[in-house]
Amino acid sequence: MIFRQMAPSGPREARASGIILTMTRTQPLVIGIAGGSGSGKTTVAQALMERVGPEHVAFLPHDAYYRDFSHLPPEERAQVNYDHPDSLETPLLVEHIRGLRAGRVIERPVYDFTRHARRAETVRVEPRPIILVEGILILAEPELRRQLDIKIYVDTDADLRFIRRLLRDVEERGRTVESVIRQYLTTVRPMHLEFVEPSKRYADIIIPEGGFNTVALDMLTARLQALLQSLVSADGGS
Amino acid sequence: MIFRQMAPSGPREARASGIILTMTRTQPLVIGIAGGSGSGKTTVAQALMERVGPEHVAFLPHDAYYRDFSHLPPEERAQVNYDHPDSLETPLLVEHIRGLRAGRVIERPVYDFTRHARRAETVRVEPRPIILVEGILILAEPELRRQLDIKIYVDTDADLRFIRRLLRDVEERGRTVESVIRQYLTTVRPMHLEFVEPSKRYADIIIPEGGFNTVALDMLTARLQALLQSLVSADGGS
Repeated sequence: MIFRQMAPSGPREARASGIILTMTRTQPLVIGIAGGSGSGKTTVAQALMERVGPEHVAFLPHDAYYRDFSHLPPEERAQVNYDHPDSLETPLLVEHIRGLRAGRVIERPVYDFTRHARRAETVRVEPRPIILVEGILILAEPELRRQLDIKIYVDTDADLRFIRRLLRDVEERGRTVESVIRQYLTTVRPMHLEFVEPSKRYADIIIPEGGFNTVALDMLTARLQALLQSLVSADGGS
Repeated sequence: MIFRQMAPSGPREARASGIILTMTRTQPLVIGIAGGSGSGKTTVAQALMERVGPEHVAFLPHDAYYRDFSHLPPEERAQVNYDHPDSLETPLLVEHIRGLRAGRVIERPVYDFTRHARRAETVRVEPRPIILVEGILILAEPELRRQLDIKIYVDTDADLRFIRRLLRDVEERGRTVESVIRQYLTTVRPMHLEFVEPSKRYADIIIPEGGFNTVALDMLTARLQALLQSLVSADGGS
């Protein structure tokens, strides 16, 4: 019956990787959480870490990997499009995931968003059974995508995403409504349409509404807890 | 911080139901799998049943609940829009879910698709820890939606859905290409756009590409196995 034999279509290149997940793994499981600005992806990532226990998770937010723009004069720094993939040093993130997978400690960069520069200090991240990668553009980068065993896209309507961003930037970052709207229309929205939204196509699972979606969180948590249990069993139990 | 206090928006009415899932349940868990014709939702349902063990699952396909149109003359029967919600006896399905939840055996109708009539015989369905409901319209019916603890929408591009439907109907049902196209354009596609696609908004989880999506199946399976384990524990183990 041809119907059932049809191959998974198009760009869902990492389908086969799911197969190894049903075996007892000694390799870490790499989970990517993508979604637009204000989608609730950070809330999902935090809720997942709390539920499975942060001690089991190596957390790599993509925006720690912004490039250093401190060599630019201030007016040029302000002109950089921080929603474009080129503003991030993705190859370094990929290298760090590979390192953690191989059991090595990595030094995660720390970004100073006020100076648009990397700080001198780094954060030591140790290898853990779960590697959690988070960011708006992580499914838009082929090399990064290939590192992800589970690809999640948090999908929230654009108006709600804008409202959340507006409230956050005004309340927490002291921005004016006008400046939030200007940035949203000049970079956030165009980059979302060009890079973020199309990358949804690569997701294994799409979660509507982010961190408020308890049913989806229950399901993700169950998958991760099953992984952690299988690791305990592989260690001979305890 | 207002940002985090924002309520889940709009019509996602059953969010709170997720909370009970983290407790040990004696109640069955009701899972609904929706998605367009050819989306792969049946493959997802079958794969899930195989993975968790069919003995744990009470399976209720919505299309067993088609209304009996045998009283109509043949030419009128052929005119019925079988992709419209009104062609299904959804209140009976809701009653059956409630019955199974309450621990009662139900008699599921059997539909004869060649005569557009219910058969005299029924299928005995016993209460099980997992109640699996499947159909293109199950998220489009408010009363039915309220019965579902986990709402899944299998999302596959329309061209792929049409190709799968075409191959299936030509190979398995001996239909001509022309008749498949005609039915697709006159009822399947308009009803999809009017009822099925908008119901995606109510999903807790959206699964791209259906039964070929091993990563999503792993996650659903882990959630159901955790439920079954918690029931075993509640029974005092074995």
